Amino acid sequence: MSFSFTILKQDSKTRARVGRIKTSHGAIDTPYLVPVATSASVRTLDSEDLSILGAECVLSNTYHLHLRPGDERIKKLGGLHTFMHFSGPIFTDSGGFQAFSLGFGREHNINKLGNIFPQGKRTEEKQKKLAHISDKGVLFESVYDGSKQLMNPKRSMKIQSNLGSDIIMAFDECTSPLSDYEYTKKAMERTHRWALESLKFHDKKQALYGIIQGGWWRDLRDESTKFISELPFEGIAIGGSLGHSKKDMHTILDWVIPELDARPRHLLGIGDIDDLFECVERGIDTFDCVAPTRIARRGSLYIRPAAGGRLSNKFRISIKSGKFREDKKPIDSACKCPTCKQYSRAYLRHLYSINELSYYRLATLHNVQFMLTLMAEIRESIQKGTFLKLKKRWLKA
Amino acid sequence: MSFSFTILKQDSKTRARVGRIKTSHGAIDTPYLVPVATSASVRTLDSEDLSILGAECVLSNTYHLHLRPGDERIKKLGGLHTFMHFSGPIFTDSGGFQAFSLGFGREHNINKLGNIFPQGKRTEEKQKKLAHISDKGVLFESVYDGSKQLMNPKRSMKIQSNLGSDIIMAFDECTSPLSDYEYTKKAMERTHRWALESLKFHDKKQALYGIIQGGWWRDLRDESTKFISELPFEGIAIGGSLGHSKKDMHTILDWVIPELDARPRHLLGIGDIDDLFECVERGIDTFDCVAPTRIARRGSLYIRPAAGGRLSNKFRISIKSGKFREDKKPIDSACKCPTCKQYSRAYLRHLYSINELSYYRLATLHNVQFMLTLMAEIRESIQKGTFLKLKKRWLKA
Repeated sequence: MSFSFTILKQDSKTRARVGRIKTSHGAIDTPYLVPVATSASVRTLDSEDLSILGAECVLSNTYHLHLRPGDERIKKLGGLHTFMHFSGPIFTDSGGFQAFSLGFGREHNINKLGNIFPQGKRTEEKQKKLAHISDKGVLFESVYDGSKQLMNPKRSMKIQSNLGSDIIMAFDECTSPLSDYEYTKKAMERTHRWALESLKFHDKKQALYGIIQGGWWRDLRDESTKFISELPFEGIAIGGSLGHSKKDMHTILDWVIPELDARPRHLLGIGDIDDLFECVERGIDTFDCVAPTRIARRGSLYIRPAAGGRLSNKFRISIKSGKFREDKKPIDSACKCPTCKQYSRAYLRHLYSINELSYYRLATLHNVQFMLTLMAEIRESIQKGTFLKLKKRWLKA
Repeated sequence: MSFSFTILKQDSKTRARVGRIKTSHGAIDTPYLVPVATSASVRTLDSEDLSILGAECVLSNTYHLHLRPGDERIKKLGGLHTFMHFSGPIFTDSGGFQAFSLGFGREHNINKLGNIFPQGKRTEEKQKKLAHISDKGVLFESVYDGSKQLMNPKRSMKIQSNLGSDIIMAFDECTSPLSDYEYTKKAMERTHRWALESLKFHDKKQALYGIIQGGWWRDLRDESTKFISELPFEGIAIGGSLGHSKKDMHTILDWVIPELDARPRHLLGIGDIDDLFECVERGIDTFDCVAPTRIARRGSLYIRPAAGGRLSNKFRISIKSGKFREDKKPIDSACKCPTCKQYSRAYLRHLYSINELSYYRLATLHNVQFMLTLMAEIRESIQKGTFLKLKKRWLKA
């Protein structure tokens, strides 16, 4: 296996640090927000777009690729890098998140941070659990054809081996914010047994990250941190329910991270702009999050403080607003993305309002570029010792 | 106005010819299939894609742009070229086609060539006419908000002037293949009066094409050919019902084209691969057609005879077919498009089957590039005197 992590600069005032992960497919400069390519495509973009944006790596989804087009098929086709024509490092998650999102997530109509889905109460059909968890593993009902699939550490490792990704995740159980202490403890213990099995069965050419669970109970998080960090994983991921608010999430990171050694730390599924600052400050090296691409498709485009972005508007404009009808300016005049170099807000609003497919890609190009640029600025600020100043400029703006 | 057309080579055996249209926004090498950018976007692509593909020009839709985002708004924003960031020549149609498609087309549940829409009989709602035609013009009900809009030659010319396109069309009435002789004659006479008004009111900075109507009756087509071609239009378009079959269309072209002088000839809304050969042979210089982009989105991708393309399969593969699941080859190994250079049929089938948005653009890039390349080969064959040989190679393959 070819994997290393070097810390290039430790911030003197916070746990923020600049580092470099090296893999046989190239390097990742940390802190980094990894674009999500769930089904071997960063939604709306192609690999040439990723190259133009300078995206160093992507994260793909084990559960979805296993079902469609099939991990064995991807192996036959030369592995995930060849299949999607992406030459940089690829992360894959383990399928454990789907144990939550298709299990309790559906039943509780909730996301990882405890937010009830905005569409309100779902129909019974939509709340039907599609994942049933036992010590043997997670029995999934395929979201595509209803077929049953048992996922466990051994299978997850085999699937990720077939995919040929560079950085893989141990198989875990991500619990719900509504799970009680007893259940969360039981699930954590199961995750620990599965961590040992993942270590046993994983493809030794791939760098394996262990995942810390334990919900929002201090003793469980402490126990999980100790258990996982003592195992010979290449990196440590922090997963599962992160409490009921961003504040809870910060608290959990403040419990966990001081106990970790120098290995790279990944925070699963998080990536709002304020989260990036708060979690980098607490020592996170990499993130993955679908938000930048998902909100782009729904009309929300990132802007910097100088263009009016602030915490209260989540650093976004809503391109559907009528006020952009005749706005000749780009989304953000400081942005170097292909969209901002060429198109006005008025044009983008037009495309959005008539549902033109080209809109979705142009919006995604912007939001991904925006985040990559922000992360580069964060790295630079840590190097220069001005991270807290940069954070203040953004979050107090 | 800056507009010229030079015939560079006349085929000795057919009416096919190579020419060059020059406008202040650049040149168009003919014969050319103009990509359609209905609402200021070639669906799924952006202007950088068009530049990578080498698309010399596009055709946009007067009716749709008038409604969304509004031609006056586009004028305020610097005109259509600035708005969509496309620097090449832009054609706009006149809105006359919508007099058919939203009028008799809906009522008769039919397209221009007399084909009943494959979805079968539409609901009453879907068959409700949204265009009502009188000598005053066409009263449209907006497909967006139901508002009533009167379109007539003066308004069509004003709208196209606001859009600032290079080549504009006279306002006409496109009749239905099911219209009878009396109606078609009445509509043709109206189109002739509207042609005179279009000449009177059009922006003299724009090159105006007249449109020959007359359905599939010889005497009407002859009368319309004579009337329109005697007027000082920059070019001549052939529109309207072209009979009930491709053979009828060829017959109509054989009536009309020998009567025309050297001005450029545009065939509206036609562009299957066999049509391109048959109509170039009969003397057509430019075409516009949504087929290449529309069928791409539905999974049909063009292939050359060497890759198995033939008249019977319409030179297409259907990427949804299971036989491409593990096909490592590009769509067409001879194709130079970005999609064929990077992705396998297996990857494209995967994206299509899970409805990934990136599929639509990659498929469109291929089909547009394919057609641009085919047109370049057709031009080259005319230059070399091998057009009929090329045609035979494709259509008898």
